[in-house]
Order: sequence, then C-alpha cells, then structure tokens
Amino acid sequence: MRSGSAILSSLSRHRIISRFCHITSPQRPAAVLSPMATSEDSLRRALAEKQSTIDASGNAIRQLKSSGASKSEIDDAVKALNALKLEKTSIETQLKASISGDANGSVMSRDAFRQAVVNTLERRLFYIPSFKIYRGVAGLYDYGPPGCAVKSNVLAFWRQHFVLEEDMLEVDCPCVTPEVVLKASGHVDKFTDLMVKDEKTGTCYRADHLLKDHCKDKLEKDLTMSAEKAAELKHILAVLDDLSAEQLGAKIKEYGIVAPDTKNPLSDPYPFNLMFQTSIGPSGMSPGYMRPETAQGIFVNFKDLYYYNGNKLPFAAAQIGQAFRNEISPRQGLLRVREFTLAEIEHFVDPDDKSHPKYSEVSKLEFLMFPRDLQMSGQSAKKLCLGEAVSKGIVNNQTLAYFIGRVYLFLTRLGIDEERLRFRQHLPNEMAHYAADCWDAEIESSYGWIECVGIADRSAYDLRAHTDKSGVALVAQEKFAEPKEVEKLVITPIKKELGLAFKGNQKMVVEALEAMNEKEAMDMKAALESKGEVEFEVCTLQKTVTINKKMVTISKEKKKEHQRVFTPSVIEPSFGIGRIIYCLYEHSFYMRPSKAGDEQLNVFRFPPLVAPIKCTVFPLVQNQQYEEVAKNISRSLTAAGISNKKDITGTSIGKRYARTDELGVPFAVTVDSTSSVTIRERDSKDQIRVSVDEVAAVVKEVSEGKSTWADILKKYPAHTSASADE
Amino acid sequence: MRSGSAILSSLSRHRIISRFCHITSPQRPAAVLSPMATSEDSLRRALAEKQSTIDASGNAIRQLKSSGASKSEIDDAVKALNALKLEKTSIETQLKASISGDANGSVMSRDAFRQAVVNTLERRLFYIPSFKIYRGVAGLYDYGPPGCAVKSNVLAFWRQHFVLEEDMLEVDCPCVTPEVVLKASGHVDKFTDLMVKDEKTGTCYRADHLLKDHCKDKLEKDLTMSAEKAAELKHILAVLDDLSAEQLGAKIKEYGIVAPDTKNPLSDPYPFNLMFQTSIGPSGMSPGYMRPETAQGIFVNFKDLYYYNGNKLPFAAAQIGQAFRNEISPRQGLLRVREFTLAEIEHFVDPDDKSHPKYSEVSKLEFLMFPRDLQMSGQSAKKLCLGEAVSKGIVNNQTLAYFIGRVYLFLTRLGIDEERLRFRQHLPNEMAHYAADCWDAEIESSYGWIECVGIADRSAYDLRAHTDKSGVALVAQEKFAEPKEVEKLVITPIKKELGLAFKGNQKMVVEALEAMNEKEAMDMKAALESKGEVEFEVCTLQKTVTINKKMVTISKEKKKEHQRVFTPSVIEPSFGIGRIIYCLYEHSFYMRPSKAGDEQLNVFRFPPLVAPIKCTVFPLVQNQQYEEVAKNISRSLTAAGISNKKDITGTSIGKRYARTDELGVPFAVTVDSTSSVTIRERDSKDQIRVSVDEVAAVVKEVSEGKSTWADILKKYPAHTSASADE
Repeated sequence: MRSGSAILSSLSRHRIISRFCHITSPQRPAAVLSPMATSEDSLRRALAEKQSTIDASGNAIRQLKSSGASKSEIDDAVKALNALKLEKTSIETQLKASISGDANGSVMSRDAFRQAVVNTLERRLFYIPSFKIYRGVAGLYDYGPPGCAVKSNVLAFWRQHFVLEEDMLEVDCPCVTPEVVLKASGHVDKFTDLMVKDEKTGTCYRADHLLKDHCKDKLEKDLTMSAEKAAELKHILAVLDDLSAEQLGAKIKEYGIVAPDTKNPLSDPYPFNLMFQTSIGPSGMSPGYMRPETAQGIFVNFKDLYYYNGNKLPFAAAQIGQAFRNEISPRQGLLRVREFTLAEIEHFVDPDDKSHPKYSEVSKLEFLMFPRDLQMSGQSAKKLCLGEAVSKGIVNNQTLAYFIGRVYLFLTRLGIDEERLRFRQHLPNEMAHYAADCWDAEIESSYGWIECVGIADRSAYDLRAHTDKSGVALVAQEKFAEPKEVEKLVITPIKKELGLAFKGNQKMVVEALEAMNEKEAMDMKAALESKGEVEFEVCTLQKTVTINKKMVTISKEKKKEHQRVFTPSVIEPSFGIGRIIYCLYEHSFYMRPSKAGDEQLNVFRFPPLVAPIKCTVFPLVQNQQYEEVAKNISRSLTAAGISNKKDITGTSIGKRYARTDELGVPFAVTVDSTSSVTIRERDSKDQIRVSVDEVAAVVKEVSEGKSTWADILKKYPAHTSASADE
Repeated sequence: MRSGSAILSSLSRHRIISRFCHITSPQRPAAVLSPMATSEDSLRRALAEKQSTIDASGNAIRQLKSSGASKSEIDDAVKALNALKLEKTSIETQLKASISGDANGSVMSRDAFRQAVVNTLERRLFYIPSFKIYRGVAGLYDYGPPGCAVKSNVLAFWRQHFVLEEDMLEVDCPCVTPEVVLKASGHVDKFTDLMVKDEKTGTCYRADHLLKDHCKDKLEKDLTMSAEKAAELKHILAVLDDLSAEQLGAKIKEYGIVAPDTKNPLSDPYPFNLMFQTSIGPSGMSPGYMRPETAQGIFVNFKDLYYYNGNKLPFAAAQIGQAFRNEISPRQGLLRVREFTLAEIEHFVDPDDKSHPKYSEVSKLEFLMFPRDLQMSGQSAKKLCLGEAVSKGIVNNQTLAYFIGRVYLFLTRLGIDEERLRFRQHLPNEMAHYAADCWDAEIESSYGWIECVGIADRSAYDLRAHTDKSGVALVAQEKFAEPKEVEKLVITPIKKELGLAFKGNQKMVVEALEAMNEKEAMDMKAALESKGEVEFEVCTLQKTVTINKKMVTISKEKKKEHQRVFTPSVIEPSFGIGRIIYCLYEHSFYMRPSKAGDEQLNVFRFPPLVAPIKCTVFPLVQNQQYEEVAKNISRSLTAAGISNKKDITGTSIGKRYARTDELGVPFAVTVDSTSSVTIRERDSKDQIRVSVDEVAAVVKEVSEGKSTWADILKKYPAHTSASADE
C-alpha cells in the first residue's frame, strides 16, 4: 500500500487523471505494499497458530481434569499453557508494533514526533486554524507571521530558481473562472470524489475514507483475523483509489459500514464535484468556479505567450497562485486543505524534439528514484544517475529529466532531506491515457510518503482540449529553411455526378469520401481502376452506396510545404507549496536537551534561505548603551534587506536563544559591549566575536549564502562564554 | 464632481462605509466641483444668450424682408447674423472642449493618451483580458509576463518598505470565508450596489451608472441646455453615491431612462450583494463567500497576534492577497475589476495614545494634501508640511500621519509623479460614524483622480464587531506599574426581597436594576434614602414597579485595579495594488520620435526598482564570439539576481532598443567586442563603455539603486556611436 496515495490527489489534475483514464486493471500490484506487510503477515499466521495451540492445550487440560489425571500432570499442562499465552502476548505486541509502524525501534513514535512539530508550529503561529474565534472551518489554515515569511522565502526562491534562471514567462490569472474553461479541461464533468450521506441526518462522508477507516481499524484492532481476511482488507486499501461507485457501494454494504457518528445507514456512493461553485455577475446566468489549479490560465493564453516568445519553441510559462478544492471532509491537517498555493510550470516543446539545451547540467545528478519496474517487483527506491535513467529509457525524455533534476535541486536547497525524498514514476493505471510519462517528487513525513510535486509529460492533451472547445487553434509552426516536398493524398469528389446519383444524400456521401484515410482511399482507387465501381459504406446514412469511377478522383500529389503546423507537447511540473513547507517543517525539526537537562528545546534547522527571520539582536543585559547598539545593528540589517528582530526583554540570554531556535532563526547577535558583539549559530551554538561595524555585513554574507558558517568561523575569533545557552 | 468617486469603492470597506453611516446631508458641497465648472457654466450662459440674440436677429431679418426693406439693409442684417453664428460656433467649440477636459491646450487628449498606453500594455502583454479565447469575462484580467514582473516587484518593495522596515506581523489567510465572519463585519447585510433590471430581458445594470451616463451624456451633447438644468444634472453627479434606492428610482423615472441596449423599461432599483457566494463542504448548509477584502482575516486573529507580540501595543499586522467583488457591470478597464490584489495593514494602537515613535522621520515631508476645509471652500489641493498638518489638527493623530508619510514615500519611490499624487481627506458624510479620520491617496490618471490607497483610523469598530459576534474578547490590557485606586459603582439587588415582591418577574427586575448606569443608580440611591421607595420602569416587563430600600443596596466602592482592559483602535492603510500599477503605467509612459522621425516610439520610464526586466543583452551583430560573450554576461546577471533577457535576433540595434524601451527596461548591454561592451540608459540614451568583467557588477549596482546613472556616467568613458538608436 502506498500511504501517499490518498493525499496525492489534492495536487493538480491527478485525481482527474485517475477518473479520466479507462485503462488496464484497476488493481495496483500487490508488490507495491510496504515491505512490512510480509512480517505482519507471518505474525498474523503465527498468532493464529499459537491461538489454536492454546485452544488445543486448553481442551487437553479440561480432558485431563475430567479424566482425573494427577495434580502434577495437570500443573505441568497449565504451566505449558501459560507459557503459550505469554508467547501469544509477545506475538500480539510485535503485531501491534508492526501495524502501527513503530517496529523499527525508533526512539519516538511517528505520532508523537508529529505532535511535537505541530504543537511548536501552532504555538509559534507558523500556522493558525482559520477563523478560530468562530470555531474554524475544516481544511482552512492561516499562515501566521513566521509561516508567512517561510512561504514568501520559498516562493522567492522558486521565482529565482525557475522563472529567472530558466527565463520563464510568468503570468498571473484570476481565481474566478467561467464554466466553459473548466468544461473544456474536464473538471466540470470529472473532478469528483465519491460521497455517501447519512440517510437520516444528511451528513456527508467520503465513501473511500469510510471504507479505508473500516479496513485499517479492523487490521489494527482485530488481531485474531485470519491472514487471508487481512490480505483481502489490504488489497482493498491498495486499490481504493480505483474502485468505482458500484464497487465502493458493494463493499460498504458487504462490511455493514454505517455513519460513524450516528450509526445510521448510508446512501449509495455518488459523485460530488470538488470545485467551489459561484456565479459571475448579477444575472445568475454565468456559472463560474474557483479554479482547482492554475494551469488552465496558462493554456488559454498559449497563443499570446507563443507570440511573445517570438513564435519559438520551446518556452515555459509559470504561475504562482491560489487554488481551491471543496473537500468533502478534509483530514491530515496541513496536507489536505480546501485552499492552497500552487506553483505551476507549463513547458511547451515540439513533440518531435524533447531534448533540452541545459540537460547536461543535471544529467550527472544522483538521487532516489522509484521507477515503475522497481515498484512492480516489490523493491524499494534506489539511487540512480539521472542521465542513465534517460539513456536506459526509464525517464521518457531529456526535458522531463531536466525538470526532475531541477526539482531535486530546488527541494534539497530548501532543506528537504535527500534521504527522505524520492521521485516515483506513475504506474500505467495511474496515468491518463494521453500522458507520456509522469513522476512525483514524494517526501517522507510522519504521514508517510507525500506527493509534493508532480512532473508530467501531458503530451498535447490540454492545448487540444481548448482548441476544440474555443475554436481558436493553439498550435505552433515550424518554418522550414527550405520548402519540403511532401506527398499528399488528394480526394476530389465530383459533386455533379454524386448529386445526380444521390440527390439529398449527396452531402453525406461527399463528406464520407473526404474523410477516408490514406489506406481506405488507395484501396478504393485500386478497386475503381480494376472494377470501375465499388461498394462504400456511409456511416452517417447507415447504408452502403455504389461509387463509380466518374464520382471521385483519388491521387497522391507532391506538394511543397513551407512549414509544419502542430500542437506542442506540454511538460508540467506542479508544486504544492503548502505540502512542501509542511514537509520542510518536519525535516527541519529536532529537539535537544537544555543545558540544565530538565527540558527538551525545540529547534528548526532551516537554512538561512528559508528561515523566517535571519537574525535576532539581543542586548545581553537591559542597559541603555547596549540597547542603542542593538538598535543600530538592527537598523543596518534592515537596510541591507536582512529580516531581523530585537529582543530587549530582561529574560535570560539562554531563554532568548531557545525562543529564537524555536523559530528557526539561524543567527543571533548578542551585544555585550559597545565595540564588538557576538554572533551565535543556531545548530552548532558556536559563537564568534565581530566588531559592531562589521556585524551587519557578516550576517548578510552568511544569510545570503555567500559564505558558509565554516568560512566565517575561520575568519573571526571564537567566543566562549559561560552565560550563553544556559 | 470628484471623478474618482465612482472608482473609489472597489477598495476595502469604503462602499460599506458610505452605506453604514446615517449621517448629515447626502449632498456633497458644490464647491467640490472641479474649477472647470465655472467656465463651463459661463459658456453655457453665453451660448444661450448668443442663441437668443441669433433668434432675435433672425426674426428681425424676416420682418425686414416682409416689410420690403432695401437689399443692402437686408444684406447687412444677414452679415451680422452670420457673424453671430460664427461666434456661437466658437462658444460651442469652447464649451465642448471644456466639457471633455481638453481645454488646457494639452497636445494629446486624455482619451488618445490612454489609448496609446493601453495599446502598448496590451500588445506587450503587460495584461491580457482573461479567458480571451472564450471571448473573456468582463472585469477579469491576467497579468502577462512583464505585468507579472512589475507586480511582483511592487509587492516585494511593499514588503521591504512596510513589513520589514516596520517589523509588521504578516499573515496569509484564505479567500474562502464562512458567512459568520462577514455577517459580523457587516458585508453580508450591507455590501451592496443598487441594481435595475431590464423588465423584459432581465439584463442587469447598476442604477447609478445609468443615471450618471444619462446626466453626462446630456451635459456633453445638449449644448443648448440651460445653465440651470446643467447645474441640476451636475448636482446629481456630485451626490450620486449618496442617493437612496428610492431617490435613484425617482430620478430614473423622471428622466425617462430606459435599458440602454433594448430601450425596454427598467425595474425599480434594489440592492445586489457584491460578494461572490459559494458553499463550503458538500452539505450545502455552510454558506461562504470569497473575501471582499483581506482585513477581516487579521481582525479575527487579533488575540493570537497580540500574544505573539508579547501582549504589547502598538503593533501592526499586514496581509497581501486576492480580494473579490462581483461587480454588476465592470467598467474603466483595469481600475474596476472583479478580482484584485490588496495589501492591507492593520496597525493596532491604544486609543489614548496615538503617538508614533518614528513620527519625526516623516514630519518634515511636504506634499499635496487636500483637507476637508479646502474641499468645502472650493479650493484645490495644496502642498502642506505633514508635521504642521498634525499640529494644526488637520490630520487627527501622529500614527495616521506617519502612515500618510510612508505611503507618500512608497508611491513616489515606485515612480508615481508627486505632482499627480494628493492625499484627500474624507468629508464628514463619506466617513462611517465610528471613523476618527480618513485620507485617500489619490493618483491622477486619464480617468481622473483615482483612489489607490485608503488610510483610515477606524477606531475600535472592527474588533468590537467580532468580539460581539464571536463572544471572544478581542482586547488589550495595560498593566499598571502600581495598582490604581478607582471608584466603582456597586449595585446589589436583594434577591430574597425581590422574589417575595415580584415572584416570577423577579429575574427581570434584578436584571433591570443591575443594568442601571451611574446616574440612574445614584438618583435611585438618593430617592431611596430620602423617600424610602421609588417608582422604577422595567422595560422587559413593560411596566413600572415600586422598589423599596430593602430590595437593593447601591454604593460606590473604592477598588484597586491592576490593569486597564480596552479595545485597541485600528489604523488601516489599504492598498489597491492593481490601481497603483495602472497609474504607474500612465505616469511612466511617454512617446518620442524615432531618429528617422517617421514614427513615435513608446517608452515606459520605470525606475529600476519596478522595471519588469532590468537589463537586456544584445550582440551587436550575429556572430558566435559576441553571442558567447552575451551569454556569459546574461549568466552572471542572472546569478546576481538581476532579471535580464538576451536578444540575439539579427534585427537592427535601434529596433532592439525600441523594443526594450517599450517594456521599460532601464539598461541595455550591447556586445560590440569581446573585451568591453556598452551600457545604454533608456531615457537619456547615454552610453558608456565597460569591460566585460565589470558589466554585471555595474548593472547590479545601478539597478539596485546603490549608484545613480549620473554616478556611473562619471566613472566610465562615454561611448558615442552612429549606429545606436537608429
């Protein structure tokens, strides 16, 4: 079971994709199940065996008793039974641990770790449940001051790393979108989740959630379940995303699942569209939706953007903005929300040439990849060289690979742990029929592997869909340096003859003749030449007519063509900014004992690039002179564009350091004289001494990544103080 | 007439304010009418007089003819009549010019200027009508690549200038907002415009727009209208925003206004709520809206933010984000749109102390201000010193003034012309009853004076509204250094006595007694002491009861208080980012002849801070060596964070300069050798010669404002070339 699968769909069109494609078996290969499954399985079997041995010895003891066996004989048997029961308890403990995922001897359970992170995040206002004083709204969160700063740093770096370095055309389109656009994209008809209603109260639930909860609950709590039954429930969890409304409904009935809150019976599952609907203008006649992704805004502008780019391919457009999804019942905190920030790139290429000019800059990168065949054969993700993955045909093309490489660089520079980042290829049944290849950047968190970036080669699908619906050709031209000679099929129906023969049906016959493909036409030509006439089926008339030589001429003509007109392919990296940030929080968080050892202190080890505040400035003691120095340092940092915060409270310096560590502030300046001050680094707690005049420049240099802390350490004298970090 | 008044309401709560307040006469003083009004007025009178003179001489000629006067006598009279007609034509021309605002001898009319700007903006994709391939949606626009870059520069500078420099707490709240929040703020009930419907087709119109169009049209086209009638129509235009539904309806009937497209009769005006409505979750039971402003997200978080700030006042929170307004019929292009970006600040202060620690940094600034009394007495805006405006009581308090000053600095640094920027104080009837003072930063554009930033002291209104609705106290505490002795009224109803006397009504009587204010209570105390009993009206019982001495004790007790609990005042600067950007476009745009003089070239004189691209890099001729140099320069600019664009087409260098001028790119690097290159400045067209190694550093220095172009000119040799700017 891929634990990320339920979350995946809140990004982009993935959920649509799985609904749109009518492909292959709905069953995900069992090999994708976690490796833990095997041990859990054998434990269940061992438990069942142990139970039957216990039952048997229980019976044996009863028999001994009734047959008047000796006390010592009975005592021995009871002793043996108790030993068996102890063994059973031990297996149960192992099984429970195996199910809850705590079997790896981790010091802290995943749930406890998550709770520690989330408590810190909420207490320090990284995020706030929206509209809290009105008891909040599920799935809506505010970014508080430090969270907002982290977000704006992540977005600024995204702009630098993608838009600026890749010369992308950034656009900014409205969230309010008229129905016709989302009709063309398929969202109006197919962007749905299956829902069931409590038949008495009308409360709504996601059908797959209820089934999932039922299966998980059974698996966790019913330790006596047979291994076969357990396998069945796990199979359901694995294929949950692919079940039809009928299949889901049948399982809900079969397992007797009822409304969790009231125990009332449930309705059959039916689709609920996940877009927030609204009405544009006062008439009520123009339905609109809050966009579920930003991509469509780019597609509808393709023509203008192509022109802006000098009518040249390839080029990429990008957009950062809010997207909306009216979840039936949001869960998993910050990972599944009703409104979120997406950053999307649409890179348009010639389908005949998906090479990338800067490919060599990423082709030597090595990182965890999880191609289709590793998933299907039950293996884990492996470190692969990106260039080799392309040359072996694992990644479909250079441009797709280029973006995978750039996404890897982006995420690791933000501070995502590369050991907990993998690129997972979509299995054939996860992809839409039109997609050429698809990889998700998945980040491991306490919720499992989370899809945070989707990188898909969507071929010409989106531009074609809007061309069809709007009637505006969203195409590119390749002008040939010299005109090319091409052979073209020419079918010329002789309308006069056809009119005489078919009267009112003439138009349909003409259209059917013109619609023949090359093979059909050449077959007809041969038949007409040999036999003079031929039977021809006209679908629109639902009958067969006789066509003779005089009615049509068919030939192949050589033509000079000056250009090729085609629909570009689009390669789409789509970033769920909120998910990336949440995973970054988990990867950055750690706890360390206070000096006194009496409490655990929380630290976010954000790189300066994303840290919400780069530097704090503390006067060591409350003193007007020191406060004046602190003020001046803070002012010069601000002027240099380095976000900083003064803390002039009389709190102990150790407590002030602890407060700033909890916000992930990388550097702290402490004013303990009027001529020089100390700078402390958050994770090492190393301190150096720097003159007051230099301090802003030093902090700027190291915050902006122009020097490392190690460089700085070499240049300035270390400062050791008994008073620090108490 | 303030021509900005119709636009103003797309910002923040101003429209609500005018609906919320039940104050004074709905009539804006006539003196607010433009100074042009006087000349228009006298021209209308002159025209009417001329017409009656012409009529009189026409009659005289007819009389001469019928009385058989001599030919020479008649000819003289006809000549005189023709002279009169010529004079009339001249007055008509002057009147037309006066009405259309072209009377100042400007070379280019406002409409033609706007057309030139808008054409350039649209052609170069600064903006694009959204969903254009589907024929668009009124009031929705995309920012194309250069527009998007300008916007992100403006927002980055806003963050630096306000959030970072003022240590504000930035938050980021969702757009989807539950009804209860907007019920508390008043938007659900009062955020409306008056609408009329075509009674046959159902097409909707804004009632005030129809009346406005009718009046303007009459004033422009009916030159024979009497000055009195013209004054009446102008009066309507001036008070348009304050007319009630009934008054608007009456005028529409009186003037026989019909649906503009069909000439069908119109319905009576009725209010239409301007929020986009939606439904949160699948049940249909949780109505929600797309937020009409970002401010409410801050107010509902007051408690957490106050705590985050160490329970200290003053502090400011800020938010940048999308806001939505379902306009009935959007007009005025980019100025009145259905979705827009707001940047809002809520600065919370102690109502008893509105001083500002950094006030002295702005108090010496001088700029155009338009206080209430200048407006009422028909004068124009005047340059005033901000500090004097505060000391004379024109601006209510230091904090409000501080923000006015900071907004002035923000706008002028962006490139807004300070001669076309004024701060206009709200007239009493424009402000809500709770507001202490209110100033709009208005920028003059081809549409007139446009409200782009509102800066309001809203007192405690918003926090109180959410306290009342949510039951959560949004208050601040001031802890006293030493406890203060205060006298407090204590009313103690003696429930036993009251119960005996009033039985089931006891509770109501108790509540009424406890609800007495100080004066009522002290009066009762005196009466009870002198007469032993007193008549007391209990509203909830709708009767008067007799209260005697035994039933209640009333006293004043001295108490020690350790803190003061109060609702902070909020000072709110609210920025309409799209409007600021549009005005910036107009203020930055100019045209200059090409060298050949055969065409006008368009230029945006954006300061480097906001320019969408800071630098272009051109190889002078197509040549591999030069292209390699250009590539390296471009790469080093990108690495330095300077946005840049290469143009390696073989187009003439003059044309390439013209293209980049039209995008407002301030610097162009031309590679004409492999060792040194030229840098050209956009407006002066000056060129200097700089070595290849230095060029990125020089461009960075001048783009980031660390040096001016004048500094750079002194340091590097000038380059003169016949080939440039051809």
